[in-house]
Formats: sequence, C-alpha cells, structure tokens
Amino acid sequence: MAYQIDITLTPHKKEKPASDKLGFGIHYTDHMFILDYSVDKGWHDARIVPYGPITLDPAAKVFHYGQTIFEGLKAYRTADGRIQLFRPQKNFQRLNLSNARLSIPDVDGELALEALKALVRVDQDWIPDAPGTSLYIRPFVIATQAALGVAPSTHYKFMIIMSPVGAYYAEGINPVKIFVESDHVRAVKGGVGEAKTAGNYAAGLNAQEAASKKGYSQILWLDGVHRSYIEEVGSMNVFFKINGEVHTPALNGSILAGITRDSMIQLIKSWGIPVIERPITIEEIYEAGRTGALEEAFGTGTAAVISPVGELNWRDERLTINGGKTGELSSKLYETLTGIQNGTLPDPFGWTVEVPQA
Amino acid sequence: MAYQIDITLTPHKKEKPASDKLGFGIHYTDHMFILDYSVDKGWHDARIVPYGPITLDPAAKVFHYGQTIFEGLKAYRTADGRIQLFRPQKNFQRLNLSNARLSIPDVDGELALEALKALVRVDQDWIPDAPGTSLYIRPFVIATQAALGVAPSTHYKFMIIMSPVGAYYAEGINPVKIFVESDHVRAVKGGVGEAKTAGNYAAGLNAQEAASKKGYSQILWLDGVHRSYIEEVGSMNVFFKINGEVHTPALNGSILAGITRDSMIQLIKSWGIPVIERPITIEEIYEAGRTGALEEAFGTGTAAVISPVGELNWRDERLTINGGKTGELSSKLYETLTGIQNGTLPDPFGWTVEVPQA
Ligand SMILES: Cc1ncc(COP(=O)(O)O)c(C=O)c1O
Ligand SMILES: Cc1ncc(COP(=O)(O)O)c(C=O)c1O
Repeated sequence: MAYQIDITLTPHKKEKPASDKLGFGIHYTDHMFILDYSVDKGWHDARIVPYGPITLDPAAKVFHYGQTIFEGLKAYRTADGRIQLFRPQKNFQRLNLSNARLSIPDVDGELALEALKALVRVDQDWIPDAPGTSLYIRPFVIATQAALGVAPSTHYKFMIIMSPVGAYYAEGINPVKIFVESDHVRAVKGGVGEAKTAGNYAAGLNAQEAASKKGYSQILWLDGVHRSYIEEVGSMNVFFKINGEVHTPALNGSILAGITRDSMIQLIKSWGIPVIERPITIEEIYEAGRTGALEEAFGTGTAAVISPVGELNWRDERLTINGGKTGELSSKLYETLTGIQNGTLPDPFGWTVEVPQA
Repeated sequence: MAYQIDITLTPHKKEKPASDKLGFGIHYTDHMFILDYSVDKGWHDARIVPYGPITLDPAAKVFHYGQTIFEGLKAYRTADGRIQLFRPQKNFQRLNLSNARLSIPDVDGELALEALKALVRVDQDWIPDAPGTSLYIRPFVIATQAALGVAPSTHYKFMIIMSPVGAYYAEGINPVKIFVESDHVRAVKGGVGEAKTAGNYAAGLNAQEAASKKGYSQILWLDGVHRSYIEEVGSMNVFFKINGEVHTPALNGSILAGITRDSMIQLIKSWGIPVIERPITIEEIYEAGRTGALEEAFGTGTAAVISPVGELNWRDERLTINGGKTGELSSKLYETLTGIQNGTLPDPFGWTVEVPQA
C-alpha cells in the first residue's frame, strides 16, 4: 500500500553545524513530519513541512496530563554513501505498545516507516558522516485536545523530528561511574515503566541531578517494590558478565524493552556465550564483585550503543568493575554493533533498512 | 512588595456559555497569565494577555520528558457579589513542592497570588453565579527548552488559565461506584505521586477507561508495593468513617496532599469527631464493611468537593457502603465547605481570600 504524504519544502535551508560541534539533540534538520488525529477522522493529513514551532492551546492535554509517548532511533551514512536505519520497525512496534499503555490510538507502523524514509530522504544532507556521528530520529505523539477533564484526548499529533548528533565517545569508549539510587524510583510494576512516555523521564531528573553533583554520570535504578532488583541504568538497559555468562534483568513490566538490548542479546548468543534474562539483585552484583566473579557491566541504548560501567556506588560502598576499564565483551559488542549500523560490517541479522535516495 | 504585571486586554471578548452548559474545563476565559523563566534571567515578564494558543518548538522538553506540574483551585461568586478564592496560598505552596520534585525552579508564591487576583479581576464576568458553579483556575508550569538531552530544562513558562465550570452535582450529591484497581498503580513511594505532575494522570488513563467500561466512575488506587494499602480515589483523597471515627490514608510520599483533604480534616475535628491519618488496607475496609462498622466512605477534591462512595468492587467482590446512599457526615461536610467557599456560611478558619474588584 502506498501512502499519501504531502511534502512542502523549506525556502530557507539552515546552516549545518560542524561535525565536531553537534552535541546531542541540539540542532534540528530542515523538515519534520506531522500526522494529525481526531476521533472523527482517525489519523490523517500526513505531511512533511519545514521544521518549525507548533501552536497549541494552553489547555492541550499533553501539558496537564502527560498523554505523550516517544521513540528514538538513528540513521547512519555508510562509507559508500548509502543511508541506513537500524531496526526501525521495532521502534514503531514499541511506539504502539507505548500508545496502548497511554490510551493513545495506534499509529500505522508502515505509514510511520514510509514517512520516516521520506523525511530522511528530504533531509539526507543532514546525516553527518564523521566517525561515530549519526542522525538521531525522534518520533513522538502528543495529546492536543484543549480540555481539562482527566480522560484520553480526542486529538493527537504524531510527529517526527531529527537531529544530527556527535560521536558519543569522542575520545574512545569510556567507562562511567554510576550511582545506585536508594530513595527515588523510576517506575514500578503496574505503572508505565515499560512504555516510553514522558513521565518516566521527569521522575528521574531529581536523582540524576543529585548523582551528578556527587560526580556520577548516571543512576542505576532499583525496583520500586523491594528496592533490590536492578532495573535500568540511566536511560539504558543493563548487562552483567558473571563467570563467563551474561545476565540482564528480565522484562518485568517496569523496564523498557530496549532494541539495543535485544540486539546485544542476539549478538552475544551468536558468539556462543549464554545470556540469562532473570531478576538480578544489587546485593548479588556486589557479592559477585567481591568474589571476582563479576567481569563486566554495561548499559545499552540507541544514544551510546554501549556504556561500560567502571564503578558503582551503592549506599556509599564503591564497587570497581574490571579495574574501571572497558571490558573485552563491551568493546567487541560496541565494534560489532556500530559496524553493522554504519555498514562497515555485514548484517547477518537483517537489522538494517536502507533508505533509497531519490 | 508590588509586582509589575503587564496587562494587554483582548479586543474581542468571547461569548460566555450558559450556566447550565458549562461542563468542566471546556470553556476558557478571555485572558491568561504568563511568566517566563530562563536560567539567565530567572522568572521574568509577568503579563496578562488575551487567551490564545502558545507556540513551542517541537523539541520542547515538556513534550518528551514530561517536566511539567500544575495546580487546581476555584474562585467563587458570593450572593452579595464578592469574589473569593479558597486557600490559594496552599496551592502555590504545593506548586513549589511539585516544582522541587520535578527539578523546576521555584515560583514566587506571592507573585503568583497577585497575578491570579489580577487575572480573576480582569475576567470577573466569567465567574458564574448559579448554585454549584464556579471558576476553575489552572496554574501550570511547562519546560520549553528545545533540547533532547534528558536533563532539567533551561527555560519554562508558568501560566494560569481559567474555565467556568458547572455544578458537579446538578441533581444533588450522588454516591459513585468505584473499581478497586489490582493491576495498574498510579504512583509508588520514591516516585512522583506526591507531586501534581502530568505523568501521574497519564498513568491512570488505561485503568480509568477499563473501569468506566464496567460501569464504574472512578478507580480506587492501591499502593504499588503491597497492593493492599489504599491511596486515593480517582483524583481525590479518600476518607472512611468507621465506628464513629474518621480514617484517611496518611501522606506517605505517593499520595497527593489534597487541600480539600486538609480542610475536611480540620472541619471534622472541629466537630469533635476523631480523625486518624494512618495506613489503611483494602482488606480492612472490606472487613469493616462486612461487620457493619464501615459507616461512610468519600473522596475529596477541588472539583467535586465531596464524592460519596456507594459501592466498591475489589476482585469481583462488591461492597455496598451506607446502603449506597450519601452519608450524614458527607452531606454535612459538603454543605459546610461549599457554604464557606461561596460565602453563605461564616469562615472561622480564615480560608477564603477575597479578590478586590477594581
Ligand atoms: C528508559 C530507557 N531504557 C532503555 C533504553 C534503551 O532502548 P533502546 O535500546 O531501544 O534505545 C531507552 C532508550 O534509549 C530508555 O529511554
Ligand atoms: C491525584 C489527586 N489527588 C487528590 C487531589 C485533591 O486535591 P485538592 O483537594 O487539593 O483538590 C487531586 C486534585 O484535585 C489530585 O489530582
């Protein structure tokens, strides 16, 4: 099926930032995609328009009741000039899982993918090609009905905006120090933790600021019920290599099902290393650290791909992991996944989707 | 201290809706208040302007990371033509507690109150005077910085919008049927439940829709840890009259500290009835229901003042409370509090704040 997507090109292309000054999510491309929803018409009016401000009633539900979800993925420029997306269908599947949890109507995943390809094609000059750079893509849905009753909105906007982002590891992949949070929780079973929705991120800002003041770059989140089971690290899923096996928290309802997580699990298994998804306590990780069984720890997510954990601080007890250095498995996963993403390595899993250039 | 608040009046006053067609949060008055924040300038540019859409970058943090909080209070028109607010200082205190939890900078509560009074004065013709009607006031803060990094915003807007609202009980105060939710949770200790922030409301939409399909008008929320302790009912605090005493869940970090709740506690105590704030389990309420010790149950909040609970459904077991009728205490609380609010009864607690009319 072909979809009707209207395209209005900007008369004023913006100047592109230098590839060493990109940062993350600061600069936006020349265009954006918009799709409207109303109860009467369903999703309608698919269009690519010049990037610019949107106008909403101050009573729009997104401002008051947080009915909003988002996704994050990337487009990569290969050495031979092709453009690839990494597992975009997965993002639109997850988008609809998030939608369901937030009482937002389903978005047609095929339309979304076609719109995304069209938008990337229009703004293809924005995909940076310096090593480690990429085009970050942010699809999101916001509730736009102007009404203060607490109930699902009658109107929504699905949008895609894009931002060229710099190399996460400008000076090589680098382990981070992580603060294990004992007071605040990000999400709890029965809540919205498995949805990619705004409120989950708002809930973490306080703890993140406090950790940052203490010199820690991210939070390790524990579960909200026992304050013992490990959930995520910052906005990443987390893995532990213990005695030659890899362990990661099982998806339990309060953890986001990361697409990088899923890819890492497949890669690791393909190398003959067992991966066990199960509940993991912080006590157990500290014990494994003390006995020397804990070999590596790392977070995984679209932004950083991998973020090795060099040190944990839990209730003032510090645990150094792998001598504070990047582990072998972390390095291999990083090289392999980024190689597949930017096209320097073959793609045996069929993860990449090429964007045809007009 | 006097604050500089610029006022731009609208050239086109809207037509006002009929007092029996008001609904809740559907119509907005002619003006709104805006205050901007930037890291450089702090809060600045206090102004009253014609009510109208606001323009935001699609990357504004409120859309992605839910950094937003709000308040809700009312202005009442008394029989002798005065205008009163109900405990507005409390709302701005709570606004700043919410701000702190969401890493949003403090708003000057005195400026906020002065701005609110000025706005109510400008739009005073919008305060309906039919019995049970009032002007609902919605102060809120949204994060406006266009940046996709997960971190507190550098820019915010504090706004106040207002909406004339109809009588909650057009045909007399009426008990509701409540579904006790066993799967979803609204908030958990360590999360943002005690803040009035958007994400808490988004988290409840699914359960509310499901309950509504089963014929229940609201959810009774249980705690996220034990799934046993009673937290709130819909967007209200909850009270139980048991053996002549009144019990309400203690504020534990995941419950919003309702201003109506606080007022009810003071009223009930002033009548010589003991009020006990403590953890209360749903098991205990059912047990008290079976033995006949449970005399009344009711929710309290700004919108409805009181909402008597006529029936609970927990795991398919129905509990009828007070024969499904409004209890004596509920009626007396409703009459007393609405009487104080709309000026037909004296205000021994000094709760009302008059808005001087120009
Ligand atoms: C809370 C959270 N956990 C985990 C992840 C990792 O997901 P993905 O690998 O799909 O980027 C993300 C997104 O980056 C996230 O926001
Ligand atoms: C979640 C929640 N609980 C309780 C209340 C009651 O608070 P108040 O009495 O201040 O209106 C509200 C707001 O109305 C609320 O949103």
